[in-house]
Amino acid sequence: MIAMPPRSGWIGLVDAGLAEDIGPGDATSAALLPPEAPGHARIEARQSLVLSGLEVARATFERLGAELEPRAGDGDRLDDGDELARVRGPAQAILAGERTALNFLQRLCGIATRTREFCDAVRDAPAEIVDTRKTTPGWRSLEKYAVRCGGGGNHRLGLFDGILIKDNHLQAVGGVAPAVERVRAQGSRHLRVRVEVETLEQAREAIEAGADAILIDNQPPESTRAFVELAQGRVRTEASGGIRLENVAAVAATGVDEISVGALTHSAPAADIALEWLER
Amino acid sequence: MIAMPPRSGWIGLVDAGLAEDIGPGDATSAALLPPEAPGHARIEARQSLVLSGLEVARATFERLGAELEPRAGDGDRLDDGDELARVRGPAQAILAGERTALNFLQRLCGIATRTREFCDAVRDAPAEIVDTRKTTPGWRSLEKYAVRCGGGGNHRLGLFDGILIKDNHLQAVGGVAPAVERVRAQGSRHLRVRVEVETLEQAREAIEAGADAILIDNQPPESTRAFVELAQGRVRTEASGGIRLENVAAVAATGVDEISVGALTHSAPAADIALEWLER
Amino acid sequence: MIAMPPRSGWIGLVDAGLAEDIGPGDATSAALLPPEAPGHARIEARQSLVLSGLEVARATFERLGAELEPRAGDGDRLDDGDELARVRGPAQAILAGERTALNFLQRLCGIATRTREFCDAVRDAPAEIVDTRKTTPGWRSLEKYAVRCGGGGNHRLGLFDGILIKDNHLQAVGGVAPAVERVRAQGSRHLRVRVEVETLEQAREAIEAGADAILIDNQPPESTRAFVELAQGRVRTEASGGIRLENVAAVAATGVDEISVGALTHSAPAADIALEWLER
Amino acid sequence: MIAMPPRSGWIGLVDAGLAEDIGPGDATSAALLPPEAPGHARIEARQSLVLSGLEVARATFERLGAELEPRAGDGDRLDDGDELARVRGPAQAILAGERTALNFLQRLCGIATRTREFCDAVRDAPAEIVDTRKTTPGWRSLEKYAVRCGGGGNHRLGLFDGILIKDNHLQAVGGVAPAVERVRAQGSRHLRVRVEVETLEQAREAIEAGADAILIDNQPPESTRAFVELAQGRVRTEASGGIRLENVAAVAATGVDEISVGALTHSAPAADIALEWLER
Amino acid sequence: MIAMPPRSGWIGLVDAGLAEDIGPGDATSAALLPPEAPGHARIEARQSLVLSGLEVARATFERLGAELEPRAGDGDRLDDGDELARVRGPAQAILAGERTALNFLQRLCGIATRTREFCDAVRDAPAEIVDTRKTTPGWRSLEKYAVRCGGGGNHRLGLFDGILIKDNHLQAVGGVAPAVERVRAQGSRHLRVRVEVETLEQAREAIEAGADAILIDNQPPESTRAFVELAQGRVRTEASGGIRLENVAAVAATGVDEISVGALTHSAPAADIALEWLER
Amino acid sequence: MIAMPPRSGWIGLVDAGLAEDIGPGDATSAALLPPEAPGHARIEARQSLVLSGLEVARATFERLGAELEPRAGDGDRLDDGDELARVRGPAQAILAGERTALNFLQRLCGIATRTREFCDAVRDAPAEIVDTRKTTPGWRSLEKYAVRCGGGGNHRLGLFDGILIKDNHLQAVGGVAPAVERVRAQGSRHLRVRVEVETLEQAREAIEAGADAILIDNQPPESTRAFVELAQGRVRTEASGGIRLENVAAVAATGVDEISVGALTHSAPAADIALEWLER
Repeated sequence: MIAMPPRSGWIGLVDAGLAEDIGPGDATSAALLPPEAPGHARIEARQSLVLSGLEVARATFERLGAELEPRAGDGDRLDDGDELARVRGPAQAILAGERTALNFLQRLCGIATRTREFCDAVRDAPAEIVDTRKTTPGWRSLEKYAVRCGGGGNHRLGLFDGILIKDNHLQAVGGVAPAVERVRAQGSRHLRVRVEVETLEQAREAIEAGADAILIDNQPPESTRAFVELAQGRVRTEASGGIRLENVAAVAATGVDEISVGALTHSAPAADIALEWLER
Repeated sequence: MIAMPPRSGWIGLVDAGLAEDIGPGDATSAALLPPEAPGHARIEARQSLVLSGLEVARATFERLGAELEPRAGDGDRLDDGDELARVRGPAQAILAGERTALNFLQRLCGIATRTREFCDAVRDAPAEIVDTRKTTPGWRSLEKYAVRCGGGGNHRLGLFDGILIKDNHLQAVGGVAPAVERVRAQGSRHLRVRVEVETLEQAREAIEAGADAILIDNQPPESTRAFVELAQGRVRTEASGGIRLENVAAVAATGVDEISVGALTHSAPAADIALEWLER
Repeated sequence: MIAMPPRSGWIGLVDAGLAEDIGPGDATSAALLPPEAPGHARIEARQSLVLSGLEVARATFERLGAELEPRAGDGDRLDDGDELARVRGPAQAILAGERTALNFLQRLCGIATRTREFCDAVRDAPAEIVDTRKTTPGWRSLEKYAVRCGGGGNHRLGLFDGILIKDNHLQAVGGVAPAVERVRAQGSRHLRVRVEVETLEQAREAIEAGADAILIDNQPPESTRAFVELAQGRVRTEASGGIRLENVAAVAATGVDEISVGALTHSAPAADIALEWLER
Repeated sequence: MIAMPPRSGWIGLVDAGLAEDIGPGDATSAALLPPEAPGHARIEARQSLVLSGLEVARATFERLGAELEPRAGDGDRLDDGDELARVRGPAQAILAGERTALNFLQRLCGIATRTREFCDAVRDAPAEIVDTRKTTPGWRSLEKYAVRCGGGGNHRLGLFDGILIKDNHLQAVGGVAPAVERVRAQGSRHLRVRVEVETLEQAREAIEAGADAILIDNQPPESTRAFVELAQGRVRTEASGGIRLENVAAVAATGVDEISVGALTHSAPAADIALEWLER
Repeated sequence: MIAMPPRSGWIGLVDAGLAEDIGPGDATSAALLPPEAPGHARIEARQSLVLSGLEVARATFERLGAELEPRAGDGDRLDDGDELARVRGPAQAILAGERTALNFLQRLCGIATRTREFCDAVRDAPAEIVDTRKTTPGWRSLEKYAVRCGGGGNHRLGLFDGILIKDNHLQAVGGVAPAVERVRAQGSRHLRVRVEVETLEQAREAIEAGADAILIDNQPPESTRAFVELAQGRVRTEASGGIRLENVAAVAATGVDEISVGALTHSAPAADIALEWLER
Repeated sequence: MIAMPPRSGWIGLVDAGLAEDIGPGDATSAALLPPEAPGHARIEARQSLVLSGLEVARATFERLGAELEPRAGDGDRLDDGDELARVRGPAQAILAGERTALNFLQRLCGIATRTREFCDAVRDAPAEIVDTRKTTPGWRSLEKYAVRCGGGGNHRLGLFDGILIKDNHLQAVGGVAPAVERVRAQGSRHLRVRVEVETLEQAREAIEAGADAILIDNQPPESTRAFVELAQGRVRTEASGGIRLENVAAVAATGVDEISVGALTHSAPAADIALEWLER
């Protein structure tokens, strides 16, 4: 079971999604359906995908008085035509929640599915596929959950739960060694220190100054391998920048520990998922 | 000038985005940068794109006490390397807002850019490219704005500002004619009536019952043309379902009035945009 | 059954009403009643009225842990002395919610009752009595619901779900015809176009330019009739301005389709409703 | 200068009023007016009235980026045609805020005007006209302010800032004397004790037990006078129930200290106020 | 049973407390405990204390899906080792709520316990120990409740439910008598008038002008006695300022009615309370 | 300059504090002071203290339209009688904000002052005094800031930005070594791992399994020294539990790296701070 983020972190998005879609009411259904008419529908995959977000879809329908019963679990691989869930309740409620629930599912399943593709591509290497902070504002915890559903790992959640020294910090402090030293003296004792490096010289300096990990920024595979060899056994290594499905296996082959991919969250195409009405 | 949606509709997303990224504070900057250190940066395109979301990025930095000065306007086409804006303020503020501001821009520019591609593809036909309700929950007004920045039009904003009779409503009421009649009698007098049709027979019935428009659902171009001919001069026509960049010109050539494309908002890849620090 | 507006649109008003009345606590009951003392009461009409708002009163008591059981339904006509509902729960909860619940009921029933009087006055004509946007800020959806309970219809809900071209727009654009044309070209394809007219010439121009309806502004009945004749069979007509119970039948006799009355919502006197304690 | 209630107590109502009216945007203005077009208008009385709520109207326009300049002050008497204020700013902003601002003014001026009528009717007696808790949920602080603008006084604001022992409390405790005694022993030492009485016997008991004031419930003037004489010089007296403009002078002539009138807030007809566009 | 303040007044603090502690998730438990592992724990006193806040602790665990069963009641005296409550639910939920629930209990029990010490110290005198407005921002209603659990009384809750004329008001109005007179003429008729006095002359003036109570500011016991004698039988007396456990009995011996102690709420040390895991 | 936590994390507490104190208005000032009367006051220390919270006090007054000018800076040591700040603005605003602003200052200065005492007591040892998660719910970020003002350090901010394996986790996983290993494999790569240990055997196991730090739980100084010697040069050490001003120097003398003290935040007595009105 993949742990969902705390509900308080995403239920507001459910409410916002419903509010912007329903507004003061569904003008079509109000005119055509009696409030008491019952409804029954199934949600199904229209492509092969990795499932993610069923609990969010459930909460969406629940807000309107309809009930979603899962027929699969987040993280499962489904084929075109497979059923994700059943929905029961007033027909007006199902119609009112349909689009918002599907909009959550299509995005989260899209991310999980794309993540799985990356994971599959590096299956033979020790590298872990991880996400970045390039997420949709308001969706961070859900999108990072979808990455976990797809088999990926999470990079730091935000600026507060990990230290990452970047180019700009180096300029301000005057180099890798002083930056690492200062952060070890003045930063949180609970956070590891990762340094973004562009040269082997920087990497060496970071390691010697006590960094816990290096982020190898935007290097081709052959160059990445040199960083990995330098780090070997001493600090953790992450390759980042310009990673695509086409080149990720080559990057993984360098022996790097983590490969971070912004496209998992910012450019995964939506999964095709539909709600089908059943006999009433 | 393309009208922005009311600020009250999206400023909460800015705050949510900042909160989830910054949380109780930026652990790295707090340890390395003095609070008073000034910063200066430029935001630039790393690919050719259509700009959208500058005011959202401005509000993001403003929340933290930094100032964004636009160097281009939403709706403009930019090339790789072009400058979108300058940012000035405390370096800690710029670093704290950087990722959230870019996350807004990369998504909205991605949508505007993809929309422009669809619009360009149908340039020689009268058809308008419009969006759908397949948007990211919480982002409806911003994503529909991005579609306008890209030259597209907006379908209804939600369930409340347009009537669209779908398959499920037809079942409940017993056919196209009774549905249109009932909605004209009991629905809002301010909303036009659009009917989703799958057969020419349904289309004919809708038109005769007084519908204002028909949505031609999931038909190949040749079939779409028959619907358009049937409707000609009497009701507005919309083609929907399965529209891709590769086939949109063929659909437009049928003479249909509107072509709605869910992928504008749910599957547009993020635009590549970066913040570069300038001399201090 | 008259459809209630979405609960999310009015539950905040229930909470605000309770907060401003109860504040940090009911100073009298806290000193006199043991927390566990049970209560039982009936809510009754003290005049003949049309019922509206029972679900809002129910939610008010529910927030405090008391239960309201309806003894009639919204839209029902009640006589002086008739019972609306029973309330059971802790006596302190009933006392804490009493005033707020009655304040909701007295206002909504007042509106429904006044609406019914207008509807009764035009019973022999085809005209529909409709409301306006002259509602109590924060109460729009509830007051429009009360109008429906009284047998009236709803004009547009706000600025977003209907197009109404007024005097000021005409000045800005240069006349009726260009205004209607521009709004048909650039406005939402889902919204009908209504034009406020003061002269027959304006009405003719609006109709010819493709308006869907005309709002006949502040005309005496005899003059209204001329507009109605002009419009007959082509666009919908609405009479507005200066409508009172005394003259509404004369207006209706002109054959106009809709008569909008601001006083339904802004000047309906409160209905007299009381909570009576029952044996304990 | 009549003190406004704290802004934090009503600004949420301004936002709710704007949200329900504007929603995702003004569909008419967006199609017809360029965002940059300036506007200029005056707000004027269309009947004689007592002004109340100008600061709320100002805040309403301010939320949208327009500016209201007062031309009169709350509490002033205005005649038909008198100017209340000027409004300047983007024409779209003025149009978007117009209805909400007027809806606030028409209600608050209506209450102030009706209050002034009651005050004028008792001008020759010592009695003060005061409001009740029969206010519009969400509007308590504003409506009590409007009563002050009209020259009336405020009864307790809610259940928390005054003690009022009612019939139901008497039943629970076993009579007037034990109720007053218990509340003096266990209630807040900062709140005076008022007792609702229906008989002279109850009044006598209340006074002897140490009540600070009696509320004479629903008595005709002649009977009220007997209560007043009983209380004279010892406790404050309030007449309540069934007070109308026609009988208020007779009630005042009994010498009662306060006359509370629910209709001030729950049934005052809206004042007629309009916004007129000026040359641009 | 000591009445809890309305839940709406403190549940937001529960949510804030949980949010700041849990943030995006419990990093330790997520890695070590399966989501479905059950937990069972007891909360126990580690010192002798007066219990307060059990319902707040219950609500804290409930927010996370765990259940607290009380084993004692607010206001009870407990000894070191005594059990307050049992907690059952998912082990992750108990761990996530543990610190926040204990933080509520340790503070509220600390206040109740300290209050009880003051009450015990004046047991032989008629004086009541009361709190002040020197509370922790955001915690007013809970801390005043804890004082009641400890056997103390509540001074006014805020600036709105009692009148207290202080030094600064006297300066503004020109003396005690005019201040009391003005407040009686223009202030709420529902609020008693208390005057802060520093000299017997001021006290005499206040009493003669009709004050209901005097607050004797910062006087030694012998001096306090003179004020009490002056007031005897006419107005209520309160001693305030510089009261400590060591001198409170001497102050009470003066015969003063109320002794207000800021330290009850601002300086009570936390009570020692712990959560112990039980066999699973 | 000690970095303040993000304003969005505490401004809600300012609003809550003002709301609970002011409610619907200051009943005393409203009756006695004209709204336009200006005020001028100084805030001063009534004991020697370490300053903390000036920006929070400033925001409190600002919310009401008054202005605070600092005369000292957070972290400064002040003596009895020293001035912290001046306040200017409407007298009603200053009176309305006075108590809330002082309530913030007395608590935060109390924590900073107590922290400084602990820091002074260990001045000759390398140990750092740090806080715990035993903070006042809703106040975490402010109280941890006050600890920094007093010269202390911050332990983890919450459950999300540090890993701390406690007794209960050990039971669930089956011992120290498996717990550390599992958390290193499955936990965030950005968070260091600290283990709470009660025996030298556990400490040794933790260090060998790769923990970054050990928390020595509730040991007397002599025993603590043994843990420190075991850890020396390999992992960081923290002493926790039962630390008081009287014994902290002895604990520090063991050479431990960090000493965590819950009493810094949960039991620091309020600092004595007052607002004095100046000539007007």
